[in-house]
Amino acid sequence: MTRQSFADVDCGVAQAAQQIGDKWTLVILRDAFNGVNRYDDFARHLGVASNVLAARLSALVDADILYRRPVAADGRAVEYKLTPKGLALYPLIVFLHQWGDRWMPKTRGKRLEVVDRQTLRPVREVQVHDADGQPLTARDTRSRIGRGGSDVMRHLQSVVAQRQRGPS
Amino acid sequence: MTRQSFADVDCGVAQAAQQIGDKWTLVILRDAFNGVNRYDDFARHLGVASNVLAARLSALVDADILYRRPVAADGRAVEYKLTPKGLALYPLIVFLHQWGDRWMPKTRGKRLEVVDRQTLRPVREVQVHDADGQPLTARDTRSRIGRGGSDVMRHLQSVVAQRQRGPS
Repeated sequence: MTRQSFADVDCGVAQAAQQIGDKWTLVILRDAFNGVNRYDDFARHLGVASNVLAARLSALVDADILYRRPVAADGRAVEYKLTPKGLALYPLIVFLHQWGDRWMPKTRGKRLEVVDRQTLRPVREVQVHDADGQPLTARDTRSRIGRGGSDVMRHLQSVVAQRQRGPS
Repeated sequence: MTRQSFADVDCGVAQAAQQIGDKWTLVILRDAFNGVNRYDDFARHLGVASNVLAARLSALVDADILYRRPVAADGRAVEYKLTPKGLALYPLIVFLHQWGDRWMPKTRGKRLEVVDRQTLRPVREVQVHDADGQPLTARDTRSRIGRGGSDVMRHLQSVVAQRQRGPS
């Protein structure tokens, strides 16, 4: 039987994937970080079917990534704003910009640069750093089950260990 | 009419979202970074329908994120390995672990810690940094169209500017 929702899966990546692992959701978040906050503006910019857009916005509100608030100047209008949990996704969006530009490049140069608002200098590449701030690759690190535990990661480690012991 | 593929969309985030904006894809990548590389092991660990798994693995190979290679000791077996483009996704996976654990926490503590293989010290939180290495939030930055240009970001900026000029 195939698992349909990851909501109860005991792994941070699965929990995150359940909430933001969708291509429309990612471009909606990109737009939200760039100042789009009305339903009509998302629809106009994204060219997305209204049922798809409405479902994604509702799911983001349910996940506490966006919240709805009335527009002060217009009693009936509502805008979608990023919550603290949503704002914490900023490194993800910057990473996707950088990775997309690096690996699906345009010949003339970068599509976009994210710059410091004050100095106008481009931000650094989003990377994993050690405790001293030195960049690390996947080969430099390993995953350790934390105090909270993770059934998923324990199972994953047993699958990998069994494979390493011999052919199946 | 709704856009079905983002492959031709002139934006790094959209390009990235087309290739990795899927919840199954994200947990497949998590597994690949943690040493899973056989079809049967992905299937066993993820409990995913075989058509879903096969489609996602093929798409990741087509996108040059994974590659297939024969297993030396077994003429018929194939393993899936991360390409350089795939290995470059490591900050994304670490970020999702951290964000998931931070915002969908367990009471006893973190599910997982990613640690330096040598020192066993946990890695830092994945963040956006300025040119001097200081952390930046979304409010500290802005997006600037690069030399390669981006139709999508130009349109986005015009939508936001029009909204700011007045009610529609």
